[in-house]
Amino acid sequence: MKLAKQFFLVALCIASLSLPAFAADPLPSWNDTASKKAIVAFVERVTKESSLDFVPPVERIATFDQDGTLWAEQPMYFQFFFILDRVKALAPQHPEWKEKEPFASLLKGDVKGALTGGERAMLEIVMATHAGMTTEEFAQTVKDWIATARHPKTKRPYTEMVYQPMLELLTYLRANGFKTCIVSGGGIEFMRPWTEQVYGIPPEQVIGSSIKTKFELRDGKPVLVRLPEINFIDDKEGKPVAINQHIGRRPIAAFGNSDGDLQMLQWTTAGSGARFALLVHHTDAEREWAYGRASSIGRLDKALDEAQAKGWTVVDMKNDWKNVFPFELPK
Amino acid sequence: MKLAKQFFLVALCIASLSLPAFAADPLPSWNDTASKKAIVAFVERVTKESSLDFVPPVERIATFDQDGTLWAEQPMYFQFFFILDRVKALAPQHPEWKEKEPFASLLKGDVKGALTGGERAMLEIVMATHAGMTTEEFAQTVKDWIATARHPKTKRPYTEMVYQPMLELLTYLRANGFKTCIVSGGGIEFMRPWTEQVYGIPPEQVIGSSIKTKFELRDGKPVLVRLPEINFIDDKEGKPVAINQHIGRRPIAAFGNSDGDLQMLQWTTAGSGARFALLVHHTDAEREWAYGRASSIGRLDKALDEAQAKGWTVVDMKNDWKNVFPFELPK
Repeated sequence: MKLAKQFFLVALCIASLSLPAFAADPLPSWNDTASKKAIVAFVERVTKESSLDFVPPVERIATFDQDGTLWAEQPMYFQFFFILDRVKALAPQHPEWKEKEPFASLLKGDVKGALTGGERAMLEIVMATHAGMTTEEFAQTVKDWIATARHPKTKRPYTEMVYQPMLELLTYLRANGFKTCIVSGGGIEFMRPWTEQVYGIPPEQVIGSSIKTKFELRDGKPVLVRLPEINFIDDKEGKPVAINQHIGRRPIAAFGNSDGDLQMLQWTTAGSGARFALLVHHTDAEREWAYGRASSIGRLDKALDEAQAKGWTVVDMKNDWKNVFPFELPK
Repeated sequence: MKLAKQFFLVALCIASLSLPAFAADPLPSWNDTASKKAIVAFVERVTKESSLDFVPPVERIATFDQDGTLWAEQPMYFQFFFILDRVKALAPQHPEWKEKEPFASLLKGDVKGALTGGERAMLEIVMATHAGMTTEEFAQTVKDWIATARHPKTKRPYTEMVYQPMLELLTYLRANGFKTCIVSGGGIEFMRPWTEQVYGIPPEQVIGSSIKTKFELRDGKPVLVRLPEINFIDDKEGKPVAINQHIGRRPIAAFGNSDGDLQMLQWTTAGSGARFALLVHHTDAEREWAYGRASSIGRLDKALDEAQAKGWTVVDMKNDWKNVFPFELPK
């Protein structure tokens, strides 16, 4: 084939293939408010080759908190429901738990009572349910749970309580060459078994809190055993540390919803060139929950002040989101 | 455009675009021996959609040791030359080093003497040269050093002492949908500033040993400060642990050269489906170095036994590699 003809055909293909991309609104669950406009303006600013703020695709890193940013976190962090279910499931193997706090309270359904033991009680519960098995056994337990467990209020699987506007945002960013990563206080191995299916985010782009693991040969077969020892807490000051450790590049965009995300947003926006920071403010008591400055879960206080002072984008869920959950979408 | 016509044009484009890929040998610096054949056979086995062992692209993870696998490691690990140069550069700020071991010996050029202090001495040297600055300052120091430092024997920049056959292998794997990752005992932040340029491996795919870092606001500007405390040693049993922590998926192929890589190869090959493990055996005293079972650097003893027992691919550098370093290639 002559080169000119070949070139023509290729150009034709590209033109015909890429046309549909311009046709539809990539963020249909976002109302046409300032938040959506700010997102689109930022993406255009860093992706147009003619733009002064153009960022090469390899540097287009976007980090997302999970709890309260990608999925709901009320009435408690969803991983805590997993913990409660695991305590119940493991109780027959631990008859001593009936008399032993914090397990005794948990088994009676008294979460508040169990947590009067503070951080030490929490740590004991986490280790009893998250350590002592291989990484593969734990991943299977998580997969089984996430496939069957239901949220106490909506009666929906937890993976349906993700935010439709954020799913669209993830897809939109990836379509524009971004690498989307999760940076969550939740357990790294609690998230990885299902984030690819739910968010399109592969395990290597999921960062979270972790316990230590140990390599062992069991009957000649190598396994990684989960140890009852904290490795890393991926919250607050820990988030930039973990981003540096796992990604080794500063994100150009970061998305969170609470004071636990403040340092990630500070770190992201302190880089040179165009930067984007967004906080989801839970203002919708009817479709979701309304909470913020005084909440014990997902407190948004210092980060909200800093967002206002620095002009970060704050999503007003009630007014900015046309839909909240995917199951509300018209079929 | 009618759908059939559009489809025809697209098919034509794809056919015309992909033809050149078949034309050239993707591994020209490999002799036509068993090692090369084993590599090509494995890649075809996991990438052909009709193959029973087909692996989807997202799961095509290949991990590479660095020292002795991607670049040379004699007469000592290259990062140790960096350390020596840093001790010299920092000596004026530390007049006490003239009298204080292990620094006094190092400054006199007596490396052996300095290391009689064992692990404790080594740790002191590492922390004196790797901690106390921000991550950005350290990255700049590494960049400046790697751009100017020269290997004592070849007088070449260290980044030219990479193995040409392995560069071709990295490119070949990536062209076949693999994600290539480094899993090295070397410092993660010592490698990341230059691996993308040298190996085409971006920072988020570089895993290594690390010290702890701490998030701080300095005059309102967020920084990560490098602390004199070991975070993780990415060697031996540490390699599968780090792979699980950073990638969260088991590699399907792993490449190493020493006993420090044994557990990574065990972990990789213990997964289900097609797996590939390769060891580079340094057998070429003329073009490179010849060492193995008795070497203090890059000892290849237990891993060689296991490779032979399990049928892993062992590269005989002298016979399997047509070229060793890129600077030997005919121009």
